[in-house]
Amino acid sequence: MNRLGSVIAAVSTPPGKGGIAVIRISGPGAADITDKVFRPKNEKSLLSHAPRTAVYGDIAGEDGIIDDGLAVYFPAPNSYTGEDTVEISCHGGILLTQLVLEAVFAAGALPAEPGEFTKRAYISGKLGLIKAESVIDLIDAESRESVKLASSQSRGALSGKIDDIYNKMKQLLSSIYAYIDFPDEDLTDVPGSELLSRLSDIRNEVDSLASTWKTGRAVKDGISACIAGKPNVGKSSLLNALLGYDRAIVTDIAGTTRDIVSEKVSLGRASLKLSDTAGIHKAEDIVERIGVDRAVEELEKSELILAVFDGSQPLDSADSEFAFHIGAARKNNPSVRVIAVINKSDLPAVFNDSEIKKLIEDAEIIRLSACSGNVTTLAELIDRMFIDGSLDLSNDAIISNARQYAALIRAREDLDSALKSLKSGFTQDIAGLDVEHAMSNISEIDGLSVSEDIVDDIFHRFCVGK
Amino acid sequence: MNRLGSVIAAVSTPPGKGGIAVIRISGPGAADITDKVFRPKNEKSLLSHAPRTAVYGDIAGEDGIIDDGLAVYFPAPNSYTGEDTVEISCHGGILLTQLVLEAVFAAGALPAEPGEFTKRAYISGKLGLIKAESVIDLIDAESRESVKLASSQSRGALSGKIDDIYNKMKQLLSSIYAYIDFPDEDLTDVPGSELLSRLSDIRNEVDSLASTWKTGRAVKDGISACIAGKPNVGKSSLLNALLGYDRAIVTDIAGTTRDIVSEKVSLGRASLKLSDTAGIHKAEDIVERIGVDRAVEELEKSELILAVFDGSQPLDSADSEFAFHIGAARKNNPSVRVIAVINKSDLPAVFNDSEIKKLIEDAEIIRLSACSGNVTTLAELIDRMFIDGSLDLSNDAIISNARQYAALIRAREDLDSALKSLKSGFTQDIAGLDVEHAMSNISEIDGLSVSEDIVDDIFHRFCVGK
Repeated sequence: MNRLGSVIAAVSTPPGKGGIAVIRISGPGAADITDKVFRPKNEKSLLSHAPRTAVYGDIAGEDGIIDDGLAVYFPAPNSYTGEDTVEISCHGGILLTQLVLEAVFAAGALPAEPGEFTKRAYISGKLGLIKAESVIDLIDAESRESVKLASSQSRGALSGKIDDIYNKMKQLLSSIYAYIDFPDEDLTDVPGSELLSRLSDIRNEVDSLASTWKTGRAVKDGISACIAGKPNVGKSSLLNALLGYDRAIVTDIAGTTRDIVSEKVSLGRASLKLSDTAGIHKAEDIVERIGVDRAVEELEKSELILAVFDGSQPLDSADSEFAFHIGAARKNNPSVRVIAVINKSDLPAVFNDSEIKKLIEDAEIIRLSACSGNVTTLAELIDRMFIDGSLDLSNDAIISNARQYAALIRAREDLDSALKSLKSGFTQDIAGLDVEHAMSNISEIDGLSVSEDIVDDIFHRFCVGK
Repeated sequence: MNRLGSVIAAVSTPPGKGGIAVIRISGPGAADITDKVFRPKNEKSLLSHAPRTAVYGDIAGEDGIIDDGLAVYFPAPNSYTGEDTVEISCHGGILLTQLVLEAVFAAGALPAEPGEFTKRAYISGKLGLIKAESVIDLIDAESRESVKLASSQSRGALSGKIDDIYNKMKQLLSSIYAYIDFPDEDLTDVPGSELLSRLSDIRNEVDSLASTWKTGRAVKDGISACIAGKPNVGKSSLLNALLGYDRAIVTDIAGTTRDIVSEKVSLGRASLKLSDTAGIHKAEDIVERIGVDRAVEELEKSELILAVFDGSQPLDSADSEFAFHIGAARKNNPSVRVIAVINKSDLPAVFNDSEIKKLIEDAEIIRLSACSGNVTTLAELIDRMFIDGSLDLSNDAIISNARQYAALIRAREDLDSALKSLKSGFTQDIAGLDVEHAMSNISEIDGLSVSEDIVDDIFHRFCVGK
């Protein structure tokens, strides 16, 4: 934290070659440091120009002029970090950018740590943790829907809701303390029953917000799903059809492929983290056996099993064996969802849905032809299963971050405990303490009361330069 | 060329994830197009702000707000391209940046072609071809010295010299024509002998500028060099010592490795494009034989051979065989330079330099211990051989580009032809035409008279966004 008074600098644009690179310099005296390396063509100092104006000049290092470019000075507090900040744009060469940065270091700036600019913005109150985390999500987003979600959180959809819940808790708490201090007087016209109902409403609001996590996670992180079945039912065709479903998003962007698991696919609003598995059967060969064992393990680790059957052939003992493994996986992981995908719907069907239901209890059933490439109905079914259709990703408060979700769940537990105290006639003091705890947990979500460790952890997930 | 009236846009920062990405929009109406996607937080339009001011706002696409960021409007002609230009900074996500760019396209901009921004800058007279080419060189530079050189050319060191030569030619030409028109009158006080001496001076100036190409190329492109010798004389140790010589520059920069030949090494002012070769000897094994053949081929293709000998062992028939191959290579490529590197100078020397001279005529000779890693004397020798020490890379006019060099050589031929005409008493008309040709060739260097094909070729070497 004693770095705070210092000036930090880093390249904020992606590494590599390009037309432009931007070097960000932040901290008290950022403009003075810039003056040592940046010489405006009109020979006035950067500071003598109007703030936030792009000034053209030469960039000089120890050995003389390195490049020409633009510098913009953002005086505190009207900058990204809330501190005095300068952004220098130079040509985007790898070594060139490095030399400009070295010149800035030589002039007195320190190398910025990962996420340090955003951390400083947080410390100076320019943004809360929700907005900070949504910036990471925006940068990492791999589907249009997750951009929507992150952009909405970055604009305050969730922060507003969190504020709202926090304020309701605060009002409730003051009513509880008024009730404790003057239980028999008219100073409080809130009867105990009303306290209980207000507490219960808040608890339900927290619970309802927590329930958006399923949608948020399906959009942002994706649903871990596996494609399984006995051999030769069309598992790989289904994988290809799913991968092709929204290929435009996955493959049109240079540089995406190296960062994502190649089987991540955006399927409408949700994303799937897809793994294909070996055909499950009684393998004799030992190597094949290992493949089958892994497939069986994968069933348990998934949130969604796409259980593929060949609709053009009668169900046989291999299908039964496969279904047995699904049953076992569901026993170990009851939350796993199963969709029975009856493939080859272009051929005459030889069994009906009830036979599948006998094999896999409560399975959702869909018939399709993977070879046709049309998996729209499957995509819609997955959407219905994992996405709350009433939520508007662009405007509603949605939890899409495990840290935020965990704090919300702790708050819900505190409120449950408060409810129990009030209902069972414990003193209101105890309920008051529970509500205070809940408030503390809620306020951690946007960073009003949060430990330094958590803050460090969040900002270290940023790249250098952000 | 009919794209010129249109607005073009591209991501100008390197591809990949980072804190910031910049989208550049250029052409008449760039601000109006920006208005459709960029909504300043203060609800005024971008155009109503002072020009060149960084304005904070939301960036919106078809589906609503995508991101927040800054936009700066540079009205023509005070922009990079000389046209109305807007630069939008958004968060540097791969998909996010793509979505912002798509929104700009949807608002009416066309995707920019590689180098199109710089081409427009050239067409609107904002920069000449020398400066345009130096921008590519700046971005591609892999050594501090090549940054210096490119930066100096970008600031006009070469353009100024070219202008100067051109103007001298123009004055000479008007003297020649005056002489032709009024040979016997006093209207011209330039006698024929003075014309000849002025022409000769200009010719020498062109020649002297052309001679800087050797230095410019050694700095910018690097000297193709191979390390050769019989087996076990320390070739790989020498490679490692050279690679380690200035390693800081080569390896400290993320992303460099994938773009450069891994054996390119910056050695003081010059760079070497180093290739290591198999030990040259009479190999019996057929696979080994192929390696030796390739080593022998490499000798001929190089500009510099580092011929390694073991100074602690008497020269033997294998050394003689190796020297024979060097002799053959020099016969086929007389310009190849040879440095005999007598390795293992930490051990007592068992032969003297004259024995090496017998094997390799005119070889430069240096003794060193590659294992010690100290190759400074070798680096200095290479510098003396390939770099004109009187040149100041940061300030002098230096040719570092094959296109510029070729035009200069054509101009020199024209001037030689003019000199021949004057000397041999041909009519001055012919000399005048030659000088006109020379002027046309010289003016091609900075782009005053250059064919569209050449222009297209130059700008297509840029990346998209530059």
